[in-house]
Amino acid sequence: MKEKKTVPADVGKAFLLEVIQRHAARTEEAVLLDLESALSDNDPLLLEVLKYSLLKGGKRLRPVLAILSSRVCGRDDDNLYLLAATFEYLHAGSLIHDDVIDHAENRRGKESVVKKYGMAAAILAGDWLHARCMHLIGTLAGQQGLDIVCNATQSMVDGEFLQLRYAANSAVTEEQYRSVVLRKTARLMSATCEIGALYGHANPTQQSALARYGEKIGIAFQIVDDLLDYLGDEQATGKVVGNDFIEGKMTLPLIHALAHASDAERAELITAVEHTPRDSDGCARARQLMRAAESFAFSRQRACQEIEEGLAALSCFAHKEHQESLAVLEQLAGYILRRDR
Amino acid sequence: MKEKKTVPADVGKAFLLEVIQRHAARTEEAVLLDLESALSDNDPLLLEVLKYSLLKGGKRLRPVLAILSSRVCGRDDDNLYLLAATFEYLHAGSLIHDDVIDHAENRRGKESVVKKYGMAAAILAGDWLHARCMHLIGTLAGQQGLDIVCNATQSMVDGEFLQLRYAANSAVTEEQYRSVVLRKTARLMSATCEIGALYGHANPTQQSALARYGEKIGIAFQIVDDLLDYLGDEQATGKVVGNDFIEGKMTLPLIHALAHASDAERAELITAVEHTPRDSDGCARARQLMRAAESFAFSRQRACQEIEEGLAALSCFAHKEHQESLAVLEQLAGYILRRDR
Repeated sequence: MKEKKTVPADVGKAFLLEVIQRHAARTEEAVLLDLESALSDNDPLLLEVLKYSLLKGGKRLRPVLAILSSRVCGRDDDNLYLLAATFEYLHAGSLIHDDVIDHAENRRGKESVVKKYGMAAAILAGDWLHARCMHLIGTLAGQQGLDIVCNATQSMVDGEFLQLRYAANSAVTEEQYRSVVLRKTARLMSATCEIGALYGHANPTQQSALARYGEKIGIAFQIVDDLLDYLGDEQATGKVVGNDFIEGKMTLPLIHALAHASDAERAELITAVEHTPRDSDGCARARQLMRAAESFAFSRQRACQEIEEGLAALSCFAHKEHQESLAVLEQLAGYILRRDR
Repeated sequence: MKEKKTVPADVGKAFLLEVIQRHAARTEEAVLLDLESALSDNDPLLLEVLKYSLLKGGKRLRPVLAILSSRVCGRDDDNLYLLAATFEYLHAGSLIHDDVIDHAENRRGKESVVKKYGMAAAILAGDWLHARCMHLIGTLAGQQGLDIVCNATQSMVDGEFLQLRYAANSAVTEEQYRSVVLRKTARLMSATCEIGALYGHANPTQQSALARYGEKIGIAFQIVDDLLDYLGDEQATGKVVGNDFIEGKMTLPLIHALAHASDAERAELITAVEHTPRDSDGCARARQLMRAAESFAFSRQRACQEIEEGLAALSCFAHKEHQESLAVLEQLAGYILRRDR
């Protein structure tokens, strides 16, 4: 009988970090080699912008997920790290475009691409990264891989539109929030794992298992991201606390508080959310009310539940070789829940 | 013995327009069907933005090129019009992003997407169009088609970077201008024709012939575009005359005048180009000097030469069936030279 999967204790943190760093380093090598070969004949500024946005920074969560998903199915070769790099391309391209949209001046503790190189370079570099990603995934993971990643990318755009629609709307439900998170974040993490599995010649059961694992940890990842936006340490996250509130993003703690606060507090929250400009005083008061309604604890519990479901999806790998990769996938899920940046 | 190809006289204009309109209309139908099926479950604003940018407007040159390139090789079916639509997706996506970069308020006689829907919607809609294009080309034209379109897209970004590098630099040569035009415009038109050929089961000779035709008419197209920027009728083009000059774009007439004007006039031109802000008086004077140096006539002659080389590339189709498509490809090349918008 299979054990019920629970979130792994934080015992293997050093081991996890070592594996992540090893995979991340090989991914960076693949990025560098690919950029230098793909851009040998190109304008040097394009290469500079791409290196600036891709190297030295970021958690490399997506590449590591792709690598582990292939390895747990039994395949590991040089091209796997190039395939992994494509998910960093897609992610970096989207972040560069996000920073243009949000007029963000900083990213990962340094100037954003748009701030440092201007809008033309930022939009174009993002376009290049997206095209290169599709190109390499088509080459390395075939038509099915291309279908998966394009669907996820289109979905991500849809999620951003939905999020715009729901902005500063105090009637947004938890279900609507989930549909934003699924589109905006989770489908792409799911695609990352599924394409890794595809590359690793997974059987259909393994492929859906990894797709499901990716989706679940993707949802948890976003919930934690949204929690960090209220509770994080600006030094660690590199992001301004309360930014989501100021921008009117309807995230889970706020939605929960709106549904569970007393009538008077609810009215106060609605005012804070719907009246512009929203400021840090309004945010501080909203945070107080969310804490009183135990909305942060509730959100963390929801993330935990997603992680447990993600881990349960991996049960089909119980008797396989490559237990190391399985252990890292499990540890990684725990890390997503506990991360502070 | 084969006749030397020359630019066809403007005799078949009505015929050409009728064929273009027929193909353009079927492409619009394919766009609409595809958007509505791909976006049935998506945010309605995304669909609205995409319809706004894709329907009712534009010359549909790229879809028509893809259709004719497949037809001249002998294949014409419903999916050809969906394949053709993808080139309009790519083109529209790039125009939307261009308008963000240039802060352009108008496009094709109506408000630009960024002006009407804001920056977030514009950047995201462009990203969606690019991803959908890659997705469909991978599906309809396989790995080789995907390679061709991704290379061309990456090249386009490179061309834009080169253009930024050369901005307001009076030392730019005709050869450097050609390398910008090749990357920015011609490789994508070449890709459009080549992928059409691939879809039409072209043999390798036919495929390279159509790729070469596309490249040559692409260069001519951009030279004419650059001419229209100085000489066009704002009513017809929907663009402000002299815009390239104001932005410091080093296009062929200006490069030619700089190389062929008298020393005094050259010094005057350099001042007009390199000192900011550039204004419409400077542009008017530059236009005078370009006209005196016969730079417009020279540029038109260069475009004409490219068209002739493009037509010559089609000689391998001399004894094939589908002469109608061949005739339209030839007429279309002539139209590119004569167009006024």
